[in-house]
Amino acid sequence: MGLLIVGSVGLDTVETPFDKVENALGGSATYTSLAASYFTAPINFVGIVGEDFEQKHINILEEHDINLDGLEIVNGGKTFRWGGKYHYDLNVRDTLFTELNVFEHFDPKIPEKWTRNKFLLLGNIQPSLQMRVLKQMTNPEFIVCDTMNLWINTTRHELLDVLKNVNVLIINDSEARLLTKEPNLIKAARMIQELGPEYLIIKKGEHGAILFGDNMVFSAPAYPLENIYDPTGAGDAFAGGFTGYLHKSRDLSFENLKRAVIYGSTMASFCVEQFSTKGLEDLSRLKIHDRFLEFMELSRFDDDRN
Amino acid sequence: MGLLIVGSVGLDTVETPFDKVENALGGSATYTSLAASYFTAPINFVGIVGEDFEQKHINILEEHDINLDGLEIVNGGKTFRWGGKYHYDLNVRDTLFTELNVFEHFDPKIPEKWTRNKFLLLGNIQPSLQMRVLKQMTNPEFIVCDTMNLWINTTRHELLDVLKNVNVLIINDSEARLLTKEPNLIKAARMIQELGPEYLIIKKGEHGAILFGDNMVFSAPAYPLENIYDPTGAGDAFAGGFTGYLHKSRDLSFENLKRAVIYGSTMASFCVEQFSTKGLEDLSRLKIHDRFLEFMELSRFDDDRN
Repeated sequence: MGLLIVGSVGLDTVETPFDKVENALGGSATYTSLAASYFTAPINFVGIVGEDFEQKHINILEEHDINLDGLEIVNGGKTFRWGGKYHYDLNVRDTLFTELNVFEHFDPKIPEKWTRNKFLLLGNIQPSLQMRVLKQMTNPEFIVCDTMNLWINTTRHELLDVLKNVNVLIINDSEARLLTKEPNLIKAARMIQELGPEYLIIKKGEHGAILFGDNMVFSAPAYPLENIYDPTGAGDAFAGGFTGYLHKSRDLSFENLKRAVIYGSTMASFCVEQFSTKGLEDLSRLKIHDRFLEFMELSRFDDDRN
Repeated sequence: MGLLIVGSVGLDTVETPFDKVENALGGSATYTSLAASYFTAPINFVGIVGEDFEQKHINILEEHDINLDGLEIVNGGKTFRWGGKYHYDLNVRDTLFTELNVFEHFDPKIPEKWTRNKFLLLGNIQPSLQMRVLKQMTNPEFIVCDTMNLWINTTRHELLDVLKNVNVLIINDSEARLLTKEPNLIKAARMIQELGPEYLIIKKGEHGAILFGDNMVFSAPAYPLENIYDPTGAGDAFAGGFTGYLHKSRDLSFENLKRAVIYGSTMASFCVEQFSTKGLEDLSRLKIHDRFLEFMELSRFDDDRN
């Protein structure tokens, strides 16, 4: 049975100190699906675009065996566009413009044949849309949810409703603090788990990620990248790698969730090495596994008392 | 042969959102020596205090088998005092006052019998004093150096001289960026290694630490502490645990330096759980090793393709 992924699809204009791209393929559904596609199939993709969404973008997704039966193309409509600029310190970015276009009236419709999918990745979109997706599903068994500071600030109530229904929430450290108003991340994590999610992943950018389970904690390192070309989509690539790996392995033990976190980190590290989705387009299972092993080497130590 | 530790000795007045202490035992030599004392002996302590330094403080150090033959007590002088206040977010602190007192004219004199010590920990003091210590040593083989933003800002030239002579530099992430003016930590690390240190440790507080060697990187997790009572001395405790463990094991391989980083992180985690040096006063080898194993469990994952 497929992995259902719902999220945004966009055309991004991104400027970093190194380069600039205009109208490049972007959006949370796009990045997550591409990342997940290296682990599992089929990926059942639900999103919305306008008539201006080019065939070359469709091709990129289809070449990764992503099933686009859930991609709504609005006649006469324009695709969601976002423009951002990263500073010399790539941790800081300004949004230059946001044109919602067809995304403004997005009402995600899950094709009937996909409503029985057991694995579901709710990419970063409005919580009210995430909830509408949940309501269409027959009996989802494992739901991974991504979100962002915008929804915590503007639609907290709707977000809290979604959180009651998900198995894994993925957010970053500043979002965890924003959601709980608690500066200590460990305490913040416990507070968020009480809101519903059985598992919580806090992404910390250049500092790695932490997975919280039922009284279990796993700390994943960040890949030591000297050159980050474009941080856009790193969080989505993480969510896609994480969920794709779990969907394939069908093992929801904490030990396997740890591996999934490393695969998520692996996909995020590939993502930021190139502009837009480029870093996720030409990978292989072997290349991904090699980097997984690098993560292992990076954090491994032993006890000399053994 | 002993481990020589040189640094500051002070009386700290510290306020956190949880409590306040006045004139508590503090200083870089104090924290590092206490932390190192659980791993090795003898600890040869060099520092300066005034007549107001109480016997109870001497007792704490002596009870940990720290050799105080290098502690200069200035008749009629007053001990270095520092006052600081931590905010609700414990990552932010204000220095309320600094009274150098006898520390202003500190001219570290290494007792002749200790000048042949091979292992040396230069605690966080002015680089010019660190250099004066180095010049008194006959043939030091392994030198660990700690420093801080103040010396990077005010005595950069002297600090660079010291760096040419040390094996390991321990600093935090903001200091690494300050020293190199490079926002990418991995690039900053390579730049610092070119200044002299064979190994570099970048401490990242709640995000753990990274050890850089010759084309090798090790990422250590942070211990997931829900309650941090007093962050004072955490960096010193790290340096003491790291150096004390290495001094005892006499193994300078990268594999063993990794373990030393975890022991340093372990001592820092104990340090911040209580006010002042309290968290370092009543530990045991067993308790320390148990936490080492917790660090191992926190970051361990395996490859399901094996």
